[in-house]
Amino acid sequence: MGELIEVTDPADPRLHDYSGLTDIELRKVREPAEGLFMAEGEKVIRRALTAGYPMRSMLLSPKWAEPMRALIDTADAPVYVGAEPLLEAVTGFHVHRGALASMQRTPALEAGPLLARAKRIVVLEDIVNHTNLGAIFRSAAALGMDAALLTPRCADPLYRRSVRVSMGTVFALPYARLESWPGGLHTLADHGFRTIALTPGPTAVDLPALRFGPDEKVALLLGTEGDGLSDDALAAADLRVRIPMTAGVDSLNVAAAAAVACYAIAAAPADS
Amino acid sequence: MGELIEVTDPADPRLHDYSGLTDIELRKVREPAEGLFMAEGEKVIRRALTAGYPMRSMLLSPKWAEPMRALIDTADAPVYVGAEPLLEAVTGFHVHRGALASMQRTPALEAGPLLARAKRIVVLEDIVNHTNLGAIFRSAAALGMDAALLTPRCADPLYRRSVRVSMGTVFALPYARLESWPGGLHTLADHGFRTIALTPGPTAVDLPALRFGPDEKVALLLGTEGDGLSDDALAAADLRVRIPMTAGVDSLNVAAAAAVACYAIAAAPADS
Repeated sequence: MGELIEVTDPADPRLHDYSGLTDIELRKVREPAEGLFMAEGEKVIRRALTAGYPMRSMLLSPKWAEPMRALIDTADAPVYVGAEPLLEAVTGFHVHRGALASMQRTPALEAGPLLARAKRIVVLEDIVNHTNLGAIFRSAAALGMDAALLTPRCADPLYRRSVRVSMGTVFALPYARLESWPGGLHTLADHGFRTIALTPGPTAVDLPALRFGPDEKVALLLGTEGDGLSDDALAAADLRVRIPMTAGVDSLNVAAAAAVACYAIAAAPADS
Repeated sequence: MGELIEVTDPADPRLHDYSGLTDIELRKVREPAEGLFMAEGEKVIRRALTAGYPMRSMLLSPKWAEPMRALIDTADAPVYVGAEPLLEAVTGFHVHRGALASMQRTPALEAGPLLARAKRIVVLEDIVNHTNLGAIFRSAAALGMDAALLTPRCADPLYRRSVRVSMGTVFALPYARLESWPGGLHTLADHGFRTIALTPGPTAVDLPALRFGPDEKVALLLGTEGDGLSDDALAAADLRVRIPMTAGVDSLNVAAAAAVACYAIAAAPADS
């Protein structure tokens, strides 16, 4: 491998994976349907490969052929090289992260087997913003979570912006999408998880007071941007916790709140 | 007040404050030079007023006149109403947060007096991304920090995107810009602050081990996106702390790291 294939026609069918990347609504449908996702830049592409996603192809401009040589040599897929105006015509934007790779999605994980082997998980209820989703995955992966469960309406962690914001850490955190919600909450109980709802509600327990048994299975529930967790999720949770805040500020962004809560769970002293 | 002034000409000099809002490079220079900043949406405009920033004017489309009636009635400044295409022609984007307000900057605070009365502060070294800056202000304000110090190259907390991302909490956290850096580090020592550098470096102390005296003055140093704190800042700090991370993830986004560190400082047990 490592051979560069020159492309000159924006309509070249071999570049189909890369077309119209700025049309979010279209790509949100197309990418899962066609079984692909986009990785941008050497570090993120390498992390996708390390996580076991097969490469379908790579696309870059001539000036990046040398800097990307080591990656190109390991690529088990066609590597297309085109002038910058061609790349821009195909993708819809100026490609400035060196290389784009079209990666093959692998079969989705199922919640059951994932929950059977995980001990600390985040459950994301209808997080719809890709930037928040990528940031939450990055923090959760860094701060000791083993897995993520997504509600049916939660955004796609493999969408380009989520992947980029997470710096490829979305690949490091196994995840599964629940088939129903709030019905899926029962699955958590069935697998012995203690569910902890993060909410600014005044009746919730302060986060620093959290204690866990050494082998306790813990699921942190995080709600949608703006409205937070649904009443169903709050009612079903074993415990509601809040981040203590200074008077005058009523909430944190959900990605900041997720980072704080994951840290606090990881750092919580054991139940004595 | 409360009178609506109809505008029909995009070149109307009374709308000068709102022109070319999408030209970031231009606005970054113009807004401080002309002593103004932009607030978008009712909640953020109200927070700016509450924080003591005088309103220069407001601009909205006719359909928002009724929903914004209470705010308009309190506005001690001209309120311009123009059709949506006019607003778009002036500002460069589709105004969908109801109203824009041009607010008057107040005289910048100086570091000395701010440090004399603050106990917990964040020091932001060259944070250049407005989204990160707004997110850090929001978390710092919510999680017990009294003030922020900015290095000379740090971005402007009153730039439109910072204000929006912070939901107006940039107004709740007093801040001052240091005139020199790293020279300004001496100012922290002069005011009796213990400086704590946040870094992923392996020799740093784990964040959960932090302890503070009840009246200790603490300055949390956060470094620029990507590279983190400069060698000068790391060398000058009294203590280096790290957020413990799961193997395989090397860093958090600076806004997530800031949230975690502010929380940990606020929740740290007292030194015994």
